[in-house]
Amino acid sequence: MAKKVTFQPYNITIEVEDGENLLRVALNAGVHINASCGGEGVCGKCRVILEEGQLECPETSLLTRDEWKLGYRQACQCRVVSDIVVRIPPESLLDKKTITRRRTGVSLRPSAIDVAALREEGLYDPAFQKKFLKLPPASLDDNICDLSRLEQGLNRQFGLKNLTLDFLLTRKLARTMRQQDFQVTATLDYAQRRSRNPRLVDIEAGDTADRHFALAVDIGTTTVWVQLLDLAQGEIIGQAADYNGQLSYGDDVISRIVYSQKEKGLETLQKAVASTINNVIQTLLKRHRLQVEEISHLTLAANTTMTHLFYGIDPKHIRLAPYTPTACHVPPVRARHLGLELPEHVFIYSVSSVSSYVGGDIVSGALASGIYKEPKLTLYIDIGTNGEIVIGNHEWLVCAACSAGPAFEGGGIRFGMRAAKGAIEEVSVNPQTAEPMFVTIGMVKPKGICGSGLINLLAVLMEGNILAPNGRFREDLDTPRIRECEEGREYVLAWANETASGEDLTITEVDIDNLMRAKAAMFAGYVTLLDNVGLKLQDIEQVILAGAFGNFINLENSIAIGLLPDLPRDRFHFVGNGSLMGATLLAFSRELLEEERRVADMMTNFELSETPGFMDHYIAALFLPHTQEEYFPTITERLRAG
Amino acid sequence: MAKKVTFQPYNITIEVEDGENLLRVALNAGVHINASCGGEGVCGKCRVILEEGQLECPETSLLTRDEWKLGYRQACQCRVVSDIVVRIPPESLLDKKTITRRRTGVSLRPSAIDVAALREEGLYDPAFQKKFLKLPPASLDDNICDLSRLEQGLNRQFGLKNLTLDFLLTRKLARTMRQQDFQVTATLDYAQRRSRNPRLVDIEAGDTADRHFALAVDIGTTTVWVQLLDLAQGEIIGQAADYNGQLSYGDDVISRIVYSQKEKGLETLQKAVASTINNVIQTLLKRHRLQVEEISHLTLAANTTMTHLFYGIDPKHIRLAPYTPTACHVPPVRARHLGLELPEHVFIYSVSSVSSYVGGDIVSGALASGIYKEPKLTLYIDIGTNGEIVIGNHEWLVCAACSAGPAFEGGGIRFGMRAAKGAIEEVSVNPQTAEPMFVTIGMVKPKGICGSGLINLLAVLMEGNILAPNGRFREDLDTPRIRECEEGREYVLAWANETASGEDLTITEVDIDNLMRAKAAMFAGYVTLLDNVGLKLQDIEQVILAGAFGNFINLENSIAIGLLPDLPRDRFHFVGNGSLMGATLLAFSRELLEEERRVADMMTNFELSETPGFMDHYIAALFLPHTQEEYFPTITERLRAG
Repeated sequence: MAKKVTFQPYNITIEVEDGENLLRVALNAGVHINASCGGEGVCGKCRVILEEGQLECPETSLLTRDEWKLGYRQACQCRVVSDIVVRIPPESLLDKKTITRRRTGVSLRPSAIDVAALREEGLYDPAFQKKFLKLPPASLDDNICDLSRLEQGLNRQFGLKNLTLDFLLTRKLARTMRQQDFQVTATLDYAQRRSRNPRLVDIEAGDTADRHFALAVDIGTTTVWVQLLDLAQGEIIGQAADYNGQLSYGDDVISRIVYSQKEKGLETLQKAVASTINNVIQTLLKRHRLQVEEISHLTLAANTTMTHLFYGIDPKHIRLAPYTPTACHVPPVRARHLGLELPEHVFIYSVSSVSSYVGGDIVSGALASGIYKEPKLTLYIDIGTNGEIVIGNHEWLVCAACSAGPAFEGGGIRFGMRAAKGAIEEVSVNPQTAEPMFVTIGMVKPKGICGSGLINLLAVLMEGNILAPNGRFREDLDTPRIRECEEGREYVLAWANETASGEDLTITEVDIDNLMRAKAAMFAGYVTLLDNVGLKLQDIEQVILAGAFGNFINLENSIAIGLLPDLPRDRFHFVGNGSLMGATLLAFSRELLEEERRVADMMTNFELSETPGFMDHYIAALFLPHTQEEYFPTITERLRAG
Repeated sequence: MAKKVTFQPYNITIEVEDGENLLRVALNAGVHINASCGGEGVCGKCRVILEEGQLECPETSLLTRDEWKLGYRQACQCRVVSDIVVRIPPESLLDKKTITRRRTGVSLRPSAIDVAALREEGLYDPAFQKKFLKLPPASLDDNICDLSRLEQGLNRQFGLKNLTLDFLLTRKLARTMRQQDFQVTATLDYAQRRSRNPRLVDIEAGDTADRHFALAVDIGTTTVWVQLLDLAQGEIIGQAADYNGQLSYGDDVISRIVYSQKEKGLETLQKAVASTINNVIQTLLKRHRLQVEEISHLTLAANTTMTHLFYGIDPKHIRLAPYTPTACHVPPVRARHLGLELPEHVFIYSVSSVSSYVGGDIVSGALASGIYKEPKLTLYIDIGTNGEIVIGNHEWLVCAACSAGPAFEGGGIRFGMRAAKGAIEEVSVNPQTAEPMFVTIGMVKPKGICGSGLINLLAVLMEGNILAPNGRFREDLDTPRIRECEEGREYVLAWANETASGEDLTITEVDIDNLMRAKAAMFAGYVTLLDNVGLKLQDIEQVILAGAFGNFINLENSIAIGLLPDLPRDRFHFVGNGSLMGATLLAFSRELLEEERRVADMMTNFELSETPGFMDHYIAALFLPHTQEEYFPTITERLRAG
């Protein structure tokens, strides 16, 4: 049940889930409390005074008995268990004007696959189907070969003709047919052929039509996700993930391509990711107590490099001009051929790529989000190492990779890190004192800052007027938090005694430059693509955010720094892991499986570095939020009001 | 240049090739000369007197100086080098009446594949085709993926669309395309798809369209034949054969099936035949200096058991009632998957079988001989371990396996052997003295009798009235050649001192029973099938003999013993190795490759043991030539005249 939390003296009330952490509640409410240990409870700065209601919190040596009685609590240690009123003590107080000017922006919730809606649209129709057959047993009067008996049965019972047959099936056919007196279940694949004649994939003894499972896989450069699908019921049974085993050979696609050129490099990378996929599948099957034999196929989405590496196709030309991938549409191949521990009859179907840097993950997301069939002009954004964007509607689609670099994944940032335990994610800075308040993942001592943390930090530093629009720290502030360093100036988020490493945790102007270049590349990408189709940002009717990154992104802060366009917030939607979602949809819908290549072919790729105007847009965007204020009306207005 | 040989006192003249062996000439002319050492020259019995002309022959210790001067020669040692007249000495003389009553019958010559005729019929159109493409090189303005570039090229240059792609191709694509500046040759497969859209099989750098080869394979229970085909020129380049490596595990299909049921038995047999095929292919490639990479596909014909074993499909049910094969039409499969040392992209296409005992070898022969498109009522006969027969025309085909057993391959015959060195093949017996005259393969001391030798022997024993029509030796002949033995009576073909083994070489009444059962099964098969379609033997307009056995068969003798029907001799044709020929035709003709399954499906199989009338026909045929004389009018007439 929701609880009401009121912060005084601001008189801000927010509804939260029962048991929510109070420091996080304050952050979400836009209420600043100094707090620089990430939530571990050791700095003792996040004091609040409980005025009404109950908080569940341990006693702590950082508060005296007297303070406790007066209602002092450490916000980071408290869980909200009733409606409460808390007061921010004077040392954390902001001007009311400062605090009310905005709330920390909305985090979007990922959308989920709605099988019921698919069914309504007639799209729930898996390309793999099981058919139960009662065949007449063989006798001296009727001793045609087993395979013909099966074919005749499929023809008589289901009108199926001219099936394509999988050779391997023949080896188990005789045994399987006789196991339950010529009652069998055939698995048919309608995916490989454009014609109406399916491929006969597998045969099982007896009636197994209600046991029919598939796998959807998303191979990310960092993480491999697998969903286990029940095709008979039309359900996602579960999902699991693991780090891509290729991480040992390089963090990003370029370093992987470099590694692939070494002796046995390609083979090593192929095996590494296959092994990861095998492990995740094993985990899922165990968890859901399924036999691997019950899997009939696997659908896959991945960026172009990951696709090449998984299939064992040399990705060399992806990073050599003119940047041609070898295959954007990889023909179906037996999973075992690629080292996956799946039944012999399981084939892999992967989503087509568009170009070297707009891969199957993006096409999959475009499928999952439905933009290819949507009349609304949509901007689809996937921010990862490269930000990829797609703009268009049901009639046309343009796309590009933005070479944003890995800054938003923490790459090239001194204390940047992945979104793991100890990463600062939510942050606020007191504009008067420049004192920070933040929460780390796991609420432990801070180790570094993850991508969403960097966006939030940049936004609050800028909005607090601590950072100038050109990305330089103000020199006139009386705070030890800003100081000179080897790389210009830096801001100290946490002091050595508050951090996991025991050294000061800072963000430097060089870090900020990297972040600004990344966000400028993205923004220049939107504008350049729109220019090329004669449209403006305001014409965008819908923005879809995808990717693991989008999972945790703070919309308002992302707009504030100029990473996302300043459009009405209700136009933004978050599709979650669009790549994985698309792969799952392909397994659920034969039509989409047939459509995917068409959608990829529909997407006109722009090489931004070769596209006129891009460089100008890029340079103009190297500012917070942008040199042209008209692109960011609400931010400009807020900054002015501030 | 042909030479004329005249035999006196019979005044029989025959034209022969220059250099022909004189004993063989006599056999072919139907002139008897006692000769029982097989042609090795050691018995000294085959004396003739040279009256005119020249004979090339060594001096021999078996003739005195005086005899030599009188013109005596050993026929088996002489080569005809001019027109000659020779006289048969009194000890070999037959009644003129006996000798003139017939010549030893015609041996049919195998027909060959006539590519020119195929072209005329529009059938020369291999399902695998090479296309040379000049693709525009990749550039920053045009950096679509390599595979799409290839597809676009095929579309633009040849109007090809919606190709099916072979996954493995993708791994070599980038390298191959850049080897000769985006000039490539694509290999396309029109066989796997019923639609007009081919499968893209392989790609090579540069223009290799004139280098395009394929293999046709016939897996016999005993022998594996391979033909090497030039698809660019439309030629059979060469052929080679070897014994099927499975021979170590059993001589016939039944013993192979039994072996396959042992632990690892199936795997052992599969590997054995794959190894044989590999060896024969190696031999051919070496001989014709071809690279294995230039092979694009392999077509295969074999009997049902051999097909199952080669594909690694358990053949168990072939010999268990109700005798169902697992697959009569085996889907195409990668050659490497079956252990063949061929390029990754090579698939195997095999001719469909009809039933457990009417296999792809027979269907292949039916294709090769064209009976499925011939208005003439045709009887197609393949005599091997099982005799298989097909009757019909372009509208219908019926077929059956006759369970003739291996007698005509020498199986179950005391001195039966394969057609190898030392096997008696041509034979005559002096009806007055019961003395034999024979030639062995290689003209060495006799070791045994091969299938064609057995037929010839049976015929001459019967026609010489040494053997009664019921298969018993006459008891009233004054000759040491016929004697009692453990198995009734036997006829001595060669005495111990004349044979390779040093023991008497005989044929027993038990041997003769076996041969009679075999020929009776065949004949009963023809008549039973014809009965079932309401036709008579005389309605047969064409008889096609196929199989290795047919290669050496003596037509007249085969009719004489009742193995073949007594029809006008000009209705008989010999197709040679019909199975191999059919496999080759499939490689040459896409239409036939598409047709083959239809032809197999067209063939209605009769299980003779289950077919009413068969047993009666069989019992009636256990007689030489047959209990019903009207079936064998010319033989009956000749015997009466004799």
